[in-house]
Amino acid sequence: MADFSIPLGYSFAGLAAGLKGEGLPDLGVIFSDRPATAAAMFTRNRVQGAPLQVGREHLAAGAIRAVVVNSKNSNVATGPQGVENCRRVCRSAAAELGLVETEVFPSSTGVIGRQLPVEKLTSALAGVQSAQRSDSAAVERFAAAILTTDTRIKIRSRAVAGGTVLGVAKGAGMIEPNMATMLAYILTDLELPAGDLKPLLAAAVDDSFHCATIDSDTSTSDTVLLLANGASGKKISTADERAAFEAALRAICVELAREVVRDGEGVQRIITVRTTGALSKEQARMVGKSAANSPLVKTAVAGADPNWGRLMMAVGKTFDETIQADRVRLWGVDPADGREVDLMSDDEAVLAELRRLMRGSEVIFRIDLGLGSAACEVWGCDLTKEYISINADYTT
Amino acid sequence: MADFSIPLGYSFAGLAAGLKGEGLPDLGVIFSDRPATAAAMFTRNRVQGAPLQVGREHLAAGAIRAVVVNSKNSNVATGPQGVENCRRVCRSAAAELGLVETEVFPSSTGVIGRQLPVEKLTSALAGVQSAQRSDSAAVERFAAAILTTDTRIKIRSRAVAGGTVLGVAKGAGMIEPNMATMLAYILTDLELPAGDLKPLLAAAVDDSFHCATIDSDTSTSDTVLLLANGASGKKISTADERAAFEAALRAICVELAREVVRDGEGVQRIITVRTTGALSKEQARMVGKSAANSPLVKTAVAGADPNWGRLMMAVGKTFDETIQADRVRLWGVDPADGREVDLMSDDEAVLAELRRLMRGSEVIFRIDLGLGSAACEVWGCDLTKEYISINADYTT
Repeated sequence: MADFSIPLGYSFAGLAAGLKGEGLPDLGVIFSDRPATAAAMFTRNRVQGAPLQVGREHLAAGAIRAVVVNSKNSNVATGPQGVENCRRVCRSAAAELGLVETEVFPSSTGVIGRQLPVEKLTSALAGVQSAQRSDSAAVERFAAAILTTDTRIKIRSRAVAGGTVLGVAKGAGMIEPNMATMLAYILTDLELPAGDLKPLLAAAVDDSFHCATIDSDTSTSDTVLLLANGASGKKISTADERAAFEAALRAICVELAREVVRDGEGVQRIITVRTTGALSKEQARMVGKSAANSPLVKTAVAGADPNWGRLMMAVGKTFDETIQADRVRLWGVDPADGREVDLMSDDEAVLAELRRLMRGSEVIFRIDLGLGSAACEVWGCDLTKEYISINADYTT
Repeated sequence: MADFSIPLGYSFAGLAAGLKGEGLPDLGVIFSDRPATAAAMFTRNRVQGAPLQVGREHLAAGAIRAVVVNSKNSNVATGPQGVENCRRVCRSAAAELGLVETEVFPSSTGVIGRQLPVEKLTSALAGVQSAQRSDSAAVERFAAAILTTDTRIKIRSRAVAGGTVLGVAKGAGMIEPNMATMLAYILTDLELPAGDLKPLLAAAVDDSFHCATIDSDTSTSDTVLLLANGASGKKISTADERAAFEAALRAICVELAREVVRDGEGVQRIITVRTTGALSKEQARMVGKSAANSPLVKTAVAGADPNWGRLMMAVGKTFDETIQADRVRLWGVDPADGREVDLMSDDEAVLAELRRLMRGSEVIFRIDLGLGSAACEVWGCDLTKEYISINADYTT
């Protein structure tokens, strides 16, 4: 059932360290059989996890050979002991895999403020060599090990320029990525210079994870990592190859970002907000985020309530002084055929049509600001009682 | 049961125009037997209701003699017809009360995007003269007429400097006031020059409604109006009197703002966030708002889940670069005795104590940024399934 391809030179494991419960995978490992150039983007939250500090140090030290990710505990707000615990896990993985400590890139996701159970993690890592595989099942075990409240694994791939790009992500709550998403790992067997990776990744993330929001809460652990190990023997050299790689990378990031939202906590419907007629892409994104994050828009979508006035409220609460209320127009968009319905009316037929559109699994609004020609699409989700059930007793 | 005092020279009515259903009060009127100096603050939302445009014009024209407020329909996003409808209601009230049109201050609250049912309102206004009273029951009928999803009326008063100050407010959703709250009317029979009213009101609102949030959605209709008709024969002239009036005005605004939050949609617990050690009051308010508006903090409080890590996340997601994660400290505060519990621990005893504090009707957190000496207190509320029930089918 796997409909993804695996780049050459990488192997995967999903180990059971006992954090999620007996035998459940909760410790994911990616291993590259040769050094990979690497670039990463991290959360802009001013409170950041210990693995983000250690990961930055290891990226600065040079090539990456392995990624080690545990779920259930994010190792955030754990002080100097949290940093030392993260280093101990990296050292343990390096010893098992025959690497040096700085070749291991660490991540952790889960509850904030608890010390990492290091012994459980290092015990599980003792079995990593024998567990590593390069098949689809191993990728899926890795993808499962990094999940928290997600309900399904998130994997996408593209063949490009004689090589392969594979992306694996997780994230289901505390999601309004800012500089990165919860956790996403993108691997390619193409060869790319380290200096090229960062701008390519930044552009792709800006058009994907930065347009997604589940609950407006920006995590302390958001990380997107891109590794290029060159195992395919193909090197990205021409402008055409670079453009093709960039497109593949962006497509994978967009699909993973939308998949993260679709699997958001308690999500019943995803909300796509297309903002057009803006003065800049940033303005369009700000308006789209304001609508997609508004509790009143989200609950209206949950209830398929055709209360389009809440979209007007959300446009206005950006407090952007260039926005002119009398230029704003709103449409509902039918996902089936792209047909648009002008919403600014109290006609019963319009409300009935909007109600019908809002009963679908994807609800699409277009907001036109009537100011310029810039646009941006933002993906959010409805706010349901299930989100509250999931989050009202997360730690207990 | 009324525990408020009524300033001299004002009378009140709560008329039934048939907007809420047969016989229910939905059209509130305040009348002053002499011209009152007036000041108002309005929402900063870039989309604003027709009554806000007309209200600004009438304030600019001079003294105010009457306030006319309907619920169920906010007259927002209704174009030129909405403005004309608002003027028709003002003209009708002026004719019934023997005033000129610009002496009437209009407000509307309710659903956005529907034209005002003007005939129903003008028909009801035909009975206003005979309905106006200066007793407690009339004030309570006025307070009831302006409610939407609120569950109770909100009235506060203070005796000060030989006169009386009375405040009446409403608001239960779409509440993160910015420059004003949903609707609040503050009346005094003291005499104050028109030029003094605005700075006094601005200072009181900044310390009260601007520190309250129910759902981070800023309404298109927020209005706070202050009227001073001088009917007590007392004039605020000395610095002491001015200070006493300022304190009374602030106290009423704070009590009304907290009461608005306490009666917020689906609210089970109110959340008070005291931010200390900030570089400025604005920084402290921003941090407090970030915590009080975080869906993950709000759901944790709903479930009495001692997940203090979410407060750390909320501090960090302000993206304020002056904030240093390792200087941030968190406390839970016992409302009974003010005792503080240091939360940054994974000790079971601390978590148990926090769980106990979170089961109360008011949950108080203190966040110290360790940067300076400024502070601000913000009032928010938990996010419950009831909020979603109320908002998933508001118009239908």
